Amino acid sequence: MPDTVEIGLGRSARRGYHLDEIALVPTRRTRGSSMVSIAWQIDAHSFELPLITAPSDAIVSPDTAGALGALGGLGLLNGEGLWTRYDEPGPILEKLRSQLEDASLADGGALGYLQRLYAEPVKVDLLTRRIAEMRAAGGAVAVRVSPQHAEVLAPHAIAAGADILVIQGTVTSAEQVRRTDDGDTRSGLNLKTFIAALDIPVIVGGCANYQTALHLMRTGAAGVIIGYGAHSGSTTAQALGIDVPMATALIDGAAARRDYLEETGGRYVHLIAYGDTYTGGDIAKALACGADAVMLGEPLAAAAEAPGRGLYWDPTATHPRMPRSSVVEVAAEDERPSLVELLIGATSDSSGERSLFASVRRAMAKCGYSTVKEFQRAELILSRR
Amino acid sequence: MPDTVEIGLGRSARRGYHLDEIALVPTRRTRGSSMVSIAWQIDAHSFELPLITAPSDAIVSPDTAGALGALGGLGLLNGEGLWTRYDEPGPILEKLRSQLEDASLADGGALGYLQRLYAEPVKVDLLTRRIAEMRAAGGAVAVRVSPQHAEVLAPHAIAAGADILVIQGTVTSAEQVRRTDDGDTRSGLNLKTFIAALDIPVIVGGCANYQTALHLMRTGAAGVIIGYGAHSGSTTAQALGIDVPMATALIDGAAARRDYLEETGGRYVHLIAYGDTYTGGDIAKALACGADAVMLGEPLAAAAEAPGRGLYWDPTATHPRMPRSSVVEVAAEDERPSLVELLIGATSDSSGERSLFASVRRAMAKCGYSTVKEFQRAELILSRR
Amino acid sequence: MPDTVEIGLGRSARRGYHLDEIALVPTRRTRGSSMVSIAWQIDAHSFELPLITAPSDAIVSPDTAGALGALGGLGLLNGEGLWTRYDEPGPILEKLRSQLEDASLADGGALGYLQRLYAEPVKVDLLTRRIAEMRAAGGAVAVRVSPQHAEVLAPHAIAAGADILVIQGTVTSAEQVRRTDDGDTRSGLNLKTFIAALDIPVIVGGCANYQTALHLMRTGAAGVIIGYGAHSGSTTAQALGIDVPMATALIDGAAARRDYLEETGGRYVHLIAYGDTYTGGDIAKALACGADAVMLGEPLAAAAEAPGRGLYWDPTATHPRMPRSSVVEVAAEDERPSLVELLIGATSDSSGERSLFASVRRAMAKCGYSTVKEFQRAELILSRR
Amino acid sequence: MPDTVEIGLGRSARRGYHLDEIALVPTRRTRGSSMVSIAWQIDAHSFELPLITAPSDAIVSPDTAGALGALGGLGLLNGEGLWTRYDEPGPILEKLRSQLEDASLADGGALGYLQRLYAEPVKVDLLTRRIAEMRAAGGAVAVRVSPQHAEVLAPHAIAAGADILVIQGTVTSAEQVRRTDDGDTRSGLNLKTFIAALDIPVIVGGCANYQTALHLMRTGAAGVIIGYGAHSGSTTAQALGIDVPMATALIDGAAARRDYLEETGGRYVHLIAYGDTYTGGDIAKALACGADAVMLGEPLAAAAEAPGRGLYWDPTATHPRMPRSSVVEVAAEDERPSLVELLIGATSDSSGERSLFASVRRAMAKCGYSTVKEFQRAELILSRR
Repeated sequence: MPDTVEIGLGRSARRGYHLDEIALVPTRRTRGSSMVSIAWQIDAHSFELPLITAPSDAIVSPDTAGALGALGGLGLLNGEGLWTRYDEPGPILEKLRSQLEDASLADGGALGYLQRLYAEPVKVDLLTRRIAEMRAAGGAVAVRVSPQHAEVLAPHAIAAGADILVIQGTVTSAEQVRRTDDGDTRSGLNLKTFIAALDIPVIVGGCANYQTALHLMRTGAAGVIIGYGAHSGSTTAQALGIDVPMATALIDGAAARRDYLEETGGRYVHLIAYGDTYTGGDIAKALACGADAVMLGEPLAAAAEAPGRGLYWDPTATHPRMPRSSVVEVAAEDERPSLVELLIGATSDSSGERSLFASVRRAMAKCGYSTVKEFQRAELILSRR
Repeated sequence: MPDTVEIGLGRSARRGYHLDEIALVPTRRTRGSSMVSIAWQIDAHSFELPLITAPSDAIVSPDTAGALGALGGLGLLNGEGLWTRYDEPGPILEKLRSQLEDASLADGGALGYLQRLYAEPVKVDLLTRRIAEMRAAGGAVAVRVSPQHAEVLAPHAIAAGADILVIQGTVTSAEQVRRTDDGDTRSGLNLKTFIAALDIPVIVGGCANYQTALHLMRTGAAGVIIGYGAHSGSTTAQALGIDVPMATALIDGAAARRDYLEETGGRYVHLIAYGDTYTGGDIAKALACGADAVMLGEPLAAAAEAPGRGLYWDPTATHPRMPRSSVVEVAAEDERPSLVELLIGATSDSSGERSLFASVRRAMAKCGYSTVKEFQRAELILSRR
Repeated sequence: MPDTVEIGLGRSARRGYHLDEIALVPTRRTRGSSMVSIAWQIDAHSFELPLITAPSDAIVSPDTAGALGALGGLGLLNGEGLWTRYDEPGPILEKLRSQLEDASLADGGALGYLQRLYAEPVKVDLLTRRIAEMRAAGGAVAVRVSPQHAEVLAPHAIAAGADILVIQGTVTSAEQVRRTDDGDTRSGLNLKTFIAALDIPVIVGGCANYQTALHLMRTGAAGVIIGYGAHSGSTTAQALGIDVPMATALIDGAAARRDYLEETGGRYVHLIAYGDTYTGGDIAKALACGADAVMLGEPLAAAAEAPGRGLYWDPTATHPRMPRSSVVEVAAEDERPSLVELLIGATSDSSGERSLFASVRRAMAKCGYSTVKEFQRAELILSRR
Repeated sequence: MPDTVEIGLGRSARRGYHLDEIALVPTRRTRGSSMVSIAWQIDAHSFELPLITAPSDAIVSPDTAGALGALGGLGLLNGEGLWTRYDEPGPILEKLRSQLEDASLADGGALGYLQRLYAEPVKVDLLTRRIAEMRAAGGAVAVRVSPQHAEVLAPHAIAAGADILVIQGTVTSAEQVRRTDDGDTRSGLNLKTFIAALDIPVIVGGCANYQTALHLMRTGAAGVIIGYGAHSGSTTAQALGIDVPMATALIDGAAARRDYLEETGGRYVHLIAYGDTYTGGDIAKALACGADAVMLGEPLAAAAEAPGRGLYWDPTATHPRMPRSSVVEVAAEDERPSLVELLIGATSDSSGERSLFASVRRAMAKCGYSTVKEFQRAELILSRR
């Protein structure tokens, strides 16, 4: 029975749990790390690591997407970021760190600078060109578009050769009601019809509860993103009062996946955990709560290869009227580890923030599990930190 | 059943929840922000924003009340503040920030300075004059008096043209028992008789539980204030041991409103949340717990237009013998955003403390609600922060 | 039913609550402060304030005991402190602050200095002289002795004219088992026999649970101390693993008082709360949990009159082998308020740490109670801070 | 019934408690400290203190093992540490503090330095020599080997005269499944067969739950280590998501001990608590939760005699690819107390971190218990800190 309490006369609320409120419990068997597989397969695409990046210009360029692919992960280009707004974002990105640090309060500071930078319109031909560059860099090509611009941009992305499409807004539902310019109520993007017409796998989200996850699964998506990308600079909870207790959201999403599997007689939809995963332990716990893969942003911004040079920001930071996250310094510019150290190791850092997926593998081994699918049923314990 | 536990042998206590312990849960439908109305109507007065200010000299002068009205809110003048004690408070307020910062410990510091400033008696003719100035500035005219001085001041305020009267002490009940000078017990202000004799809507408070809220509703008030105005400088909890878990208090107040609605066959009394609302998310959660509007103090003190020049204090800071809040620096004097940025945006600040009501609108849209009344039934989740 | 949970297989624990986890809930009636009485009467002695001091040399000398009495409280001299070890502790106390601050780590720092200072033996004739000085200063005379030295010192204290005897160790039980020098087991001080033979009221403690409190009541004590004097420098929890959730301990003590009242057909034993009370609100909550009076230490050390000149230490800091609290700086030497400001006000400080008993009176008034006895049944709410 | 809650739809978790969430409750009897025995006997070996050290080069050399034995504890040499890798680790240890502090980030900092130092292979002849040195220094000789190297090293250790063997990995189970070089699955070290063949008592661990503890008991071990050695520099929780709520883990281990005692008709296996014990109170609580002894690391690193000169690190910090703890500064190099002050006192320090076992003795006395075995049933209370 759900863990609900009466928080006031006649009104109850369920209690939600964050990843840092739970811990993994080892079983009585342990395994050698070499016996553990963390491979991820979605549709026809296989990855050695259960990793897709956040669609952040601070971590993904066509080049770094290639580097991520070579290491076994999936780099996700923001189809509405700097690479599709500017012909040559390279020099902009190179100067960005110093410019963000110099941005004066009077001009809105770092976020004001980003808002002006992202006010440049998205160009369809640049989207096409970036996809070609990603293909050339090797690995699967994944592009993110927003629900608002999916109808315009997605066909171009697919025509250009994208392998995987991600339709992602902060809070995305299967049924969005909007008003047309002449004041009539109308539905927003009909995801079900839209996805049915596409011939590549689509990942949609984010969402954070059973009902929304189930309805997003019914759109025909191959994967559903759970969470809104909470990171250390996020302010969605402060600005909107919406917060995602990720452990609970993932477990609820897994319940939706199970019910949808039964409803469809066997269609398995992937859950992708997005937010509040900073360390190997966080990733392991997200998988143990039911995720098939994680979408990582901030932790990868420390990489020497990352375009943000140690800074991290995501699309919520560039909103023209109401940004909902800040620019975060993840690493000093000259103290950034390599992507391989971050993802796989070896490392001499004990923070848990490097060697991320070797850590996941080791956590599974010590807990006694061989595959992610088994690990999704691991025993959890609530533990105050 | 209420969430009570035995805290010692034979003694139980209910558990109360603060706004920062809960979060909103989006439904499976989202809406465009343009489809959301946050308008507030109390008695014959309509406001675009569900906002009444705290009666603080740091944020409301007759002029700023006009500015607030123009933006869709309701500015509430403290009828027992500097504007009714001094003929020309303008110069006093202009110098106040530097004087508060210079106040020496030996003289009681900033609060000692305020105590001396507020020792000047309130003058009825100044109250009359300020109301005229507010009328001239435009918008509805609202004035706050304390329960102790309501009998003397309210008739003058109404005669001068006030539209809405607020009778507000920190903890206000429908039945106050006092002792007369000759030592006999007598009742304090009889709110029921008093309000019945007035011909403008009256808002009373604050209170924090079902019984007191219900009894205040039975006085004939148009609105009841829930909460004691807790802000970052408040020390009511330390000084008196009284603390308001706002989420629980609002939900209990909403239960009283519901019962009173049935008891009267349809009289709807507004709930106004006062305290612990710092961000758009806090305001959204207060509405979702049952508030019809919020009374904001500290968050508005950052405005360039605010008389306090970036400092905030409220009437509890000026108590002659036992102040129960301190003077808070909300913004550096030269880094204050405009009132329009604070209330509506756009902004380049991601703290959640600006663009407050655009945030509320967006929160409702993302959660799938069109009106405040629907939103008062939103799903909540308990989530540790 | 008690709030117990299984913390491991086959082992349960009750949950205890600290004062800062609870808050007072106002009733629907409020009262004027002038209608509230906080007077305290124990045996034949009446006090305007429900206050006895901790037996700390940092706050009580014969002179300050007189000053406390004049303000309505009860100063408790440590019968085993500097005043009974040194002929002229005045100059020692005058230099103590600078000496504590100069104490070098090599010599054990401040506590090492205190250990050496308190190594001087207690003299019976000094005890007699101090009691005479206290009588001369006016007010009731209260002296504390430890359980270990009660048999030797108490008769002298009573002969010298003490009005109230306090037998107080950190953790005191009615039955202490000790070993004699020749190795046999024997009982320690038999409190029941000992108290029966004395003809002044005796207060004993501290203790922290129902059983111990009940057994201490059965010794014939007039009052029982609940708590071990936890203050901001206390380390009993770290050193011994013993911690007192004060709200629970007081409520349990009140249950013991109730059962003992029935068992004896009417003998009322006073509960004195000792520890974790720093503000007026803390004191109010202690009374609302069942205390008849509070034993205050650290909060009074800020007084201009206090011998410790802004520093606080208690007997647990001077233990020769294992001190269990540190020396705390409560106030800068030249920024100390008067005792009257601390106890009664007026004040310009909003921290809740001054005007302590005016705050208690106000808290009771706002909650709607006239006497401490009624207030002991006040409604409480659990509220996260 | 266990304290479990549904943390998401269809998925429950038990709640685990850390030592700092519980406190001891004194009974109504207290005892003199001299009546309390904290002696520990495992197999044929008796110790005045229920203490075995962590196998850390920062605290144990052959010499300090002797010093620990003289004080009544058991020093545990890491059989795979510096003393068995280097012929003359003395000079290395003497310079280590300055070298760790000088280690540059570019070389992986302090942990990088340690990784290189521990890359030197372990030599069997050095192991033999160290055991001879420990025998010469006096007291029982205890050596730790890892599960991976137990089969190679243990016979040499025993042949050289070790009294007690500790087989310890971070997370150790009775059944480890590994893969051979040719890819076949095979079991790891079979602890049951292995231990049966040895003729000295073996302690194994760590583990953290009932099932694993029970299976480790069934291997024939004399003692089982509960916990993974969490200390202030540990990052196992961050890196692996595995966290040990120690109070719960010990109580569960005690349940396994009880069930195994019944299953075997009387074989008693010792529980050794390893992790999160920093003060005398922590140790007392570990014993009260069921431990027979504690394994201490970080608290002893402050000793003047400790080879680490005020720094602490354990084997998890030296992992070649993924260290899971950092080097902690426990004390300034020139402000280290003696081992006798740390373990027994007297002290002038009130932190609870010195006079550790005198504190334990006093805690038991104040709670009314004479032996560790009785104390394992002490009443506990949950208390927020």
